[in-house]
Amino acid sequence: LKELVFVGLGLHNEKDISVKGIEEIKTADTVYAELYTSLMPNLSIVSLEKAIKRRISVLSRKDLEDESGKTLLENAKRGKTVLLVPGDPLIATTHVALRIEAERLGIRTRVIHGVSILSAVIGLSGLHNYKFGKSVTIPFAGEYGCISETPYDVIAQNKRLGLHTLCLLDIRAEQKRYMTVREGLKVLLEVEEIRKQQVITLETLAVGIAKAGSENPRVKADFLKELLDHDFGDPPHTVVFVGRLHFMEAEALVVLAGAPENVRQTAQ
Amino acid sequence: LKELVFVGLGLHNEKDISVKGIEEIKTADTVYAELYTSLMPNLSIVSLEKAIKRRISVLSRKDLEDESGKTLLENAKRGKTVLLVPGDPLIATTHVALRIEAERLGIRTRVIHGVSILSAVIGLSGLHNYKFGKSVTIPFAGEYGCISETPYDVIAQNKRLGLHTLCLLDIRAEQKRYMTVREGLKVLLEVEEIRKQQVITLETLAVGIAKAGSENPRVKADFLKELLDHDFGDPPHTVVFVGRLHFMEAEALVVLAGAPENVRQTAQ
Repeated sequence: LKELVFVGLGLHNEKDISVKGIEEIKTADTVYAELYTSLMPNLSIVSLEKAIKRRISVLSRKDLEDESGKTLLENAKRGKTVLLVPGDPLIATTHVALRIEAERLGIRTRVIHGVSILSAVIGLSGLHNYKFGKSVTIPFAGEYGCISETPYDVIAQNKRLGLHTLCLLDIRAEQKRYMTVREGLKVLLEVEEIRKQQVITLETLAVGIAKAGSENPRVKADFLKELLDHDFGDPPHTVVFVGRLHFMEAEALVVLAGAPENVRQTAQ
Repeated sequence: LKELVFVGLGLHNEKDISVKGIEEIKTADTVYAELYTSLMPNLSIVSLEKAIKRRISVLSRKDLEDESGKTLLENAKRGKTVLLVPGDPLIATTHVALRIEAERLGIRTRVIHGVSILSAVIGLSGLHNYKFGKSVTIPFAGEYGCISETPYDVIAQNKRLGLHTLCLLDIRAEQKRYMTVREGLKVLLEVEEIRKQQVITLETLAVGIAKAGSENPRVKADFLKELLDHDFGDPPHTVVFVGRLHFMEAEALVVLAGAPENVRQTAQ
């Protein structure tokens, strides 16, 4: 059977994969993993290899993007090939491109879903799913210190609509650089300096989330002046900017995310 | 140890739970499940009980909402209690309310995340995550045939911003009623009859998705006139209304979701 199966690894370590995912790996002819699109802080490929008694080849960004997954697709033409990816597969556009390429080559593709930061952040913050607007990634400053104003615009647009904004933080796996909550907030405050629309100020409420999916995720809701100095520990980090709060959401932020009591008064 | 652990079951059957989730159940003093917030079509509680060698008590909406999870919280005060829930826990507001209540009673709470329809739909459609606006649920008509215009407004607002809309479809588990793609589209077309803003017409492009997370999810992108008669098989179903398409998204819809070739011309 020639096929390519994308299997989601989830968020934190090798035990976030589903029972179904484990079964898929066991019957595969070849198993690859891609680990550069997200950071899974406690993932041990060696432990996973032992648990499933199979060898796993880790692919680099170059293998998947510059070479368009050539080796992997060659294998998938000959037998069942599994590609393990962090989170839920096909959220990263690289995987979608690879899937399209495989289907064009007549290789059947399937997806075994994994736990995604997109839903984990909603659950951990206690905010309501249908109150989230468009999400955005905050990128590191580019060459010559150039910073993107897009995240600022997205947060501003969502705020006008009363909606929350999930901000994913930049990852440069090759350089082991993972943006922290503090770094992300600093980038946005720099944009505020230029734009001066009072979208991101020291009085703005946000929720920082670190190590979602681990035994001890750190979740803290506070105003930026406090959040900037909050210790979130090791990455990966994520930030949510808060729109209009339903009273149940405010309650969740206070009880589950340690928000200051006066957040209750901002709710409707 | 007195604690309440929310464990996500994922989308389709008892093998969607994570390896970590299985371990949590095995060390629990009491295991409950709630199965009314989402439909997991092939879930067998009996198979899961056999696999983990534990008894699982299924709670009704009444047990969790009218009684505020009284029995469950009483157990969590005495020892480690697990509540199994479909999808990723705490996306349903019922679970957030329960978690707040537990924390107020001094019961430690933790979350073992599960696969959610929110990310699965993005992956299966091949659409880009950061192009989704606010999501919405399409409810069944109420008493006297009264229908909600909210989904129409949400889709309209997202469209104006060029964004896609994830529409979850109503579930009335007690009556075993699960809204189909066709029923959801019909509700929206009825609102169009009243509002006449050309938001939902027979020429509107949408993606229907059925049985996400199963071996054979059905994914079909097409214009409403065709989608209305497409056979999506058994529920659960979901619909995505499409905003402005990036050319890679259009390509994904054609190759992965069987969209008509002319969808490529609508992309940018």
